[in-house]
Amino acid sequence: MIKVGIVGATGYTGVELLRLLSPRDDVEVAVITSRELQGRAVSERFPNLRGHLDLCFSGPDDPALQSCDAVFYATPHGVAMHSVARLIDAGVRVIDLSADFRIKDRALWESWYKTDHASPELINEAVYGLPEVNREAIKEARLIAVPGCYPTAVQLGFLPLLENDLVETNRLIADAKSGVSGAGRKAVEDYLLCEATESIKAYGLAGHRHHPEISQGLNLAANSPVQLTFVPHLTPMVRGILATLYAPVKTGTSVTAEVLQSIFEARYANEPFVDVLPQGDSPATRSVKGSNKCAISVTYSSETETVVVLAAEDNLVKGASGQAVQNLNIMFGIDELAGLQGIALLP
Amino acid sequence: MIKVGIVGATGYTGVELLRLLSPRDDVEVAVITSRELQGRAVSERFPNLRGHLDLCFSGPDDPALQSCDAVFYATPHGVAMHSVARLIDAGVRVIDLSADFRIKDRALWESWYKTDHASPELINEAVYGLPEVNREAIKEARLIAVPGCYPTAVQLGFLPLLENDLVETNRLIADAKSGVSGAGRKAVEDYLLCEATESIKAYGLAGHRHHPEISQGLNLAANSPVQLTFVPHLTPMVRGILATLYAPVKTGTSVTAEVLQSIFEARYANEPFVDVLPQGDSPATRSVKGSNKCAISVTYSSETETVVVLAAEDNLVKGASGQAVQNLNIMFGIDELAGLQGIALLP
Amino acid sequence: MIKVGIVGATGYTGVELLRLLSPRDDVEVAVITSRELQGRAVSERFPNLRGHLDLCFSGPDDPALQSCDAVFYATPHGVAMHSVARLIDAGVRVIDLSADFRIKDRALWESWYKTDHASPELINEAVYGLPEVNREAIKEARLIAVPGCYPTAVQLGFLPLLENDLVETNRLIADAKSGVSGAGRKAVEDYLLCEATESIKAYGLAGHRHHPEISQGLNLAANSPVQLTFVPHLTPMVRGILATLYAPVKTGTSVTAEVLQSIFEARYANEPFVDVLPQGDSPATRSVKGSNKCAISVTYSSETETVVVLAAEDNLVKGASGQAVQNLNIMFGIDELAGLQGIALLP
Amino acid sequence: MIKVGIVGATGYTGVELLRLLSPRDDVEVAVITSRELQGRAVSERFPNLRGHLDLCFSGPDDPALQSCDAVFYATPHGVAMHSVARLIDAGVRVIDLSADFRIKDRALWESWYKTDHASPELINEAVYGLPEVNREAIKEARLIAVPGCYPTAVQLGFLPLLENDLVETNRLIADAKSGVSGAGRKAVEDYLLCEATESIKAYGLAGHRHHPEISQGLNLAANSPVQLTFVPHLTPMVRGILATLYAPVKTGTSVTAEVLQSIFEARYANEPFVDVLPQGDSPATRSVKGSNKCAISVTYSSETETVVVLAAEDNLVKGASGQAVQNLNIMFGIDELAGLQGIALLP
Repeated sequence: MIKVGIVGATGYTGVELLRLLSPRDDVEVAVITSRELQGRAVSERFPNLRGHLDLCFSGPDDPALQSCDAVFYATPHGVAMHSVARLIDAGVRVIDLSADFRIKDRALWESWYKTDHASPELINEAVYGLPEVNREAIKEARLIAVPGCYPTAVQLGFLPLLENDLVETNRLIADAKSGVSGAGRKAVEDYLLCEATESIKAYGLAGHRHHPEISQGLNLAANSPVQLTFVPHLTPMVRGILATLYAPVKTGTSVTAEVLQSIFEARYANEPFVDVLPQGDSPATRSVKGSNKCAISVTYSSETETVVVLAAEDNLVKGASGQAVQNLNIMFGIDELAGLQGIALLP
Repeated sequence: MIKVGIVGATGYTGVELLRLLSPRDDVEVAVITSRELQGRAVSERFPNLRGHLDLCFSGPDDPALQSCDAVFYATPHGVAMHSVARLIDAGVRVIDLSADFRIKDRALWESWYKTDHASPELINEAVYGLPEVNREAIKEARLIAVPGCYPTAVQLGFLPLLENDLVETNRLIADAKSGVSGAGRKAVEDYLLCEATESIKAYGLAGHRHHPEISQGLNLAANSPVQLTFVPHLTPMVRGILATLYAPVKTGTSVTAEVLQSIFEARYANEPFVDVLPQGDSPATRSVKGSNKCAISVTYSSETETVVVLAAEDNLVKGASGQAVQNLNIMFGIDELAGLQGIALLP
Repeated sequence: MIKVGIVGATGYTGVELLRLLSPRDDVEVAVITSRELQGRAVSERFPNLRGHLDLCFSGPDDPALQSCDAVFYATPHGVAMHSVARLIDAGVRVIDLSADFRIKDRALWESWYKTDHASPELINEAVYGLPEVNREAIKEARLIAVPGCYPTAVQLGFLPLLENDLVETNRLIADAKSGVSGAGRKAVEDYLLCEATESIKAYGLAGHRHHPEISQGLNLAANSPVQLTFVPHLTPMVRGILATLYAPVKTGTSVTAEVLQSIFEARYANEPFVDVLPQGDSPATRSVKGSNKCAISVTYSSETETVVVLAAEDNLVKGASGQAVQNLNIMFGIDELAGLQGIALLP
Repeated sequence: MIKVGIVGATGYTGVELLRLLSPRDDVEVAVITSRELQGRAVSERFPNLRGHLDLCFSGPDDPALQSCDAVFYATPHGVAMHSVARLIDAGVRVIDLSADFRIKDRALWESWYKTDHASPELINEAVYGLPEVNREAIKEARLIAVPGCYPTAVQLGFLPLLENDLVETNRLIADAKSGVSGAGRKAVEDYLLCEATESIKAYGLAGHRHHPEISQGLNLAANSPVQLTFVPHLTPMVRGILATLYAPVKTGTSVTAEVLQSIFEARYANEPFVDVLPQGDSPATRSVKGSNKCAISVTYSSETETVVVLAAEDNLVKGASGQAVQNLNIMFGIDELAGLQGIALLP
């Protein structure tokens, strides 16, 4: 039995961790902390958990965290970096869903998150928790930085192209559409139903924090610096990210849809949570809603010699809590699929 | 291992049965039929099942149905009654999600469904599959008529009041709100996104087929004929039914919220899928989305001496496929909760 | 040219007033105030007004208000009562969209709004701005209390029954469904898209501020105290209220659908904004979205001897800003339909 | 008074024409045809028109069409081309909202629409009704081909770049997001609320009929053949198109956001329905919902030397019926804004 704790489980990634973990026989959710809800039953906050999880929130410094095997941070950015070191010293393995340890370049991180990093010594040790790239390193990691929601979809979509040196890397484009839950459960006017429903808009054109995280991963895959235009869009739905990716084929290279298809299928043949769709299909976010899958399709526009990749995921599952659990499974040598085989809710 | 078949699994109750059944170790989905999709992979129709269920649709008369332990009918009304008898003769236990065997009064059924009943001899034998009322009979049943979605919520909400003779039965009111999936996956103009979203309306004011089914159940509970006003509303969401029920307190009876609360809690104390909320709470349909629960709250208006009950369920789960699986579990002596402990997806 | 001002025009009733007023030739929006947005262009807050209204927010005490012919208050409750007297003394006619002057019983108001009333001397003078009841009084009024959104629909639906003494008044029921814009543009968690979409729930069961306002109007119509059960529901859509009303027919009275139909048609024959639908039709909120109409249908359940009325309106138009403009038109002797003939946006 | 007729006014572009035209004093809607609804009142089909338009559908060959000044075709593709010639011969000016006369290359049209063109002699005469390009020609036109919804947004976004020779034309990208009303009011499973809500997906990857129409316009603007990747997405909302456009800056050209901003502002300075937003703003589709505006913003990614343009419109207004009315105004020498100054409904 793996004893886990969750720090800051009052938002959407928190309730999603609980939905995935509380039915398991091999994992015990032993402690959940929340500064504001200390002493209250978890099911008061999340009525879907009534009858499934009988636990109260404790304070953020609950010593019970120290006796967990693993602790998830489902906190906003800038929180985990202050207390993670103590847990690691106590032998607890940490899975951080926030951005605190995602970016290796400390100065870059500090410029985007506009604060000093509180645990710079852990940045290098932290393993970027994208199993499709770092599975071996995850096994032994003491600290996991779970990838962001956009970075997961965008990287999984571009990886086969970059690793196989098929595309020009100076003008990659990621046009990404996210449901509103990506913004979390903050009471902010922009995310009110009356503001966000029945409308679509781009945002973050001046720069989005996921941009440097994506670039870091693409640079590694390409083994050289790539240039990326990243345009996220707020889409009128709760869950789901669809990344539409455009990459110009390398000059002099000739590709076909069939070749691309086999490259993608080969790349992800052994990946339990990446589903390469048959040629001609294209993924809808609803087909992966609530599941840990990333569904990918690849097509080729010969008119423009451009590869178009579509990658769909549930931003709260493969884009956050599901991927965190996938990391947990890998770290503890459990079947990677454990607790993650739920089928998408359709319709 | 229980071998099951599904007839007509191309609609929403069909895919929901598959979502609930295909992960199970103790149940094998052996055959699925569809006239129109014969020979096609199930996951072509339902992309959420890719990688979870490797099965093709067969024709409606597939003899494999005869060697199943149980067969579900997820067909429109008027289909099951033509072929159920043959399966029962072959020793197959049948769980019919359609309305064919729900109403005991044959003439009444025929007047509402505007056709002759093809298997009148089975009407009496059929057990109305509301476990909270008929659990014992379900255990031995050869033929289950799974209750309709509205009837499930409305009956569960009214039962404690009627069984305890607390309310006048001549002016019961059920104001029910249903998501659009209750209409099934038929290509009908009224259910287009552009027609049904961002709007609410009542319908069926001239009479709704679930009315006689509800009345039949309420009459039994009250042990006398009740009079009911039933107004269903089409609500701009996919899943969920909320029934708001109004019942005038019996003249001369004095009740309080506390008394009502204990009556409801006592009635459903041993029911795994009926969740009586604490006084002051009221159920949102999203708290049970994807789960087999019916969440109920009861309040009392002393100004009008009227009991107000709120009952929320997922119309495709407790209101259809989940309840069908609950019946299967009871029929085969399995843990009633098997395969039905999924936590509602929130948000 | 009527010069108007708007106090507190940063919410949904504010932008709706501007949408209705700014295209008019006979009305000039001269001043708009907002404490928080002072000095900012209105179109920054409301991008739909770009190119239509060239005005900046001024401070809440802008003396320009004093030289308006009429001033609308689109403020939260408890604001207007502090400054209305000064404007009235200056000869400005005031149309208050908040609840400050809706309830004639000061103690009742204070108990519901949990504050002392700051201008009790104006309560009696204020005219309740429901034109279908008070048109004559509105013409001369110095201070209008615009009815709440629920009270408008519920009263318009019940009035013909009460005025004609057709129903028992001890057990009236109003089951009302409102879009989320009824809650205003406040950054509150419950109204986030991810909390409010794809779900329906009742709220305010312990008591809703519109209850005493509705009762006050129904008592007047019935000429005796009525008893009402009022259950509002939060519905997953932006705009619209549907009130489903249930009234038991008076003992000994025999009514038919036809009789009810003619009573409703007669009652509203000369009302430009109340549309009694033909028997058999029932109103969808989308049919009045953006328009100032209240669409009403009436049916009769002989099984329970209960009249069922459906009343649909746009809560921001006939339920708020449109009705406020209708009052303006009446007060200034303009064609009552001026600026209010916009056709509902469908789909 | 301009007498107009509408052929096939039973879909969403039909009702939108009626919403825009019926309040006008200078236009009389004299005849509306529909094969299926012949003899029925228009307001039965479109309840939002009750009280606003008192007209019945007549048959498709109603001779009254011949005495109109102008006739709109709101029919599916392949209908107008069969009867337009007769009307034109009778001196009626025709505004066709379908695709029949949009593409000048007859063979290309026939290959995409998979039928022979029935009036090839009119193809050349037809004026492509994009006022921002063809205003002069529209004035005299006997036959207008109203642009498609995607082509309007995509062309308006790219035009300033192409006309000023700022970008490479071999790898243009249009990533477009459309509400479901773009699919019309056809009872098709894919557009059911339960299929289309709470999900986003790309479609038409193998080729979309608007692609050749867009290319034709871009070729003209660039004065050379352009290459375009066009990926439309079905977005879970009723109205609105957002086109996110990517264009690589011409090698050797150096641009800045400021330069781009002035080019766009200059291009559309005199266009009443194109609104170039200030630098830093980006358009949400809801800001133009129900209005005839196309809101455009332009930004520059120096990392990839790529121009990003965002163009938002209401697909049923500027993308269809509003643009058709704009053409009518131009053709008849009326103020181009007549009947088109409605403010977007927000929220």
